[in-house]
Amino acid sequence: MPTIKYYVREGLLPAGRLTSPNQAHYDEGHERRLRLIRALLDVGGLSLSAIAEVLVAVDDPGQPLHDVLGVAAGRIIPPRPEPSEGESAEPGRTWAGEEVAALLARRGWLVDADSPAGRSLEEVLTALRRAGHGGFVELLDVYADAAERVAGADLDYVRGRVAREDLVESVVVGTVLGEAMLGALRRLAHVDASARAYEGGGKAEREG
Amino acid sequence: MPTIKYYVREGLLPAGRLTSPNQAHYDEGHERRLRLIRALLDVGGLSLSAIAEVLVAVDDPGQPLHDVLGVAAGRIIPPRPEPSEGESAEPGRTWAGEEVAALLARRGWLVDADSPAGRSLEEVLTALRRAGHGGFVELLDVYADAAERVAGADLDYVRGRVAREDLVESVVVGTVLGEAMLGALRRLAHVDASARAYEGGGKAEREG
Repeated sequence: MPTIKYYVREGLLPAGRLTSPNQAHYDEGHERRLRLIRALLDVGGLSLSAIAEVLVAVDDPGQPLHDVLGVAAGRIIPPRPEPSEGESAEPGRTWAGEEVAALLARRGWLVDADSPAGRSLEEVLTALRRAGHGGFVELLDVYADAAERVAGADLDYVRGRVAREDLVESVVVGTVLGEAMLGALRRLAHVDASARAYEGGGKAEREG
Repeated sequence: MPTIKYYVREGLLPAGRLTSPNQAHYDEGHERRLRLIRALLDVGGLSLSAIAEVLVAVDDPGQPLHDVLGVAAGRIIPPRPEPSEGESAEPGRTWAGEEVAALLARRGWLVDADSPAGRSLEEVLTALRRAGHGGFVELLDVYADAAERVAGADLDYVRGRVAREDLVESVVVGTVLGEAMLGALRRLAHVDASARAYEGGGKAEREG
């Protein structure tokens, strides 16, 4: 397996125990670490240097678990279009930043408005206003309710894991693929809602 | 405004009424059409040929509104990582396709599993299983509940619009930026859930 050798060479994976000049033995710890590296690389889209940074946090016993998860989550490339450079200085930004801070206070969420996710939300609100749909912000609490429910289920999913590697891995996979899953489901639900609203419910009645 | 001239030249926007050899007058209909073109281009990420296709549907009075929205939604680039080519033939696909069909039947959603959104969900489930997290599919109904609520609010947002251009525009903006908004909120809710679970609720108690 050349990829394992490559990860070992890059210092991401400890070398296996040599059982013969051409063969190395890899144990369960290696496998767990390898799964995490692949999840960070393939699903999270992290660079090798970012992966190294996450692994340092995972291996530091003094680092609280919440901080380790924060390091991993903060490095994940958000799967959405990035705003162009220099746009952050626009006047809309202040309005958006205030909306984010107000939302976090209103919901009592233990998270900083200046965190990567807070910044993402700020950018989205700015983009909405720029597109002439600042009024969409009225849906913020409906969306936040939905996000809260889903995040609670996500946490139950990862909670059983004991090894830090497994936990970080499931957080990375759940964050990225869970977001894609939610997006696809929302678009399916849109088609359904549109069919009911604009096809006069005819199809719905025929099926019901 | 050179961009208006460009859209007119490309046949996306009708020419304005000439008020002098160097000046053209654009009315409210032009403005509405221009906003739609910009939303499709900037927010939806559509190509000019795809935009032309959407506009044909918008302008065809015989085309039911549900179909027009379907044309627009189907052309929107999904803001998520695409699977590589040839992966659709993998064995996981069948399992994922069955999961999607079962979900749609279970929820009574009036949408085809072979629609673009259905295919997206199938790809996500395939990617989850490939990453060793096929068990995440157990959260499908929690996610679908959340998607349903959000889609209902989205529909209320677009419902007041009468002109087809305005309706299609708000669907495009709402689909793309709404998905980014939901993703950012979910990541914020994750940080909150992690703080409560792995910081022993200390911070929560201090604030409560």
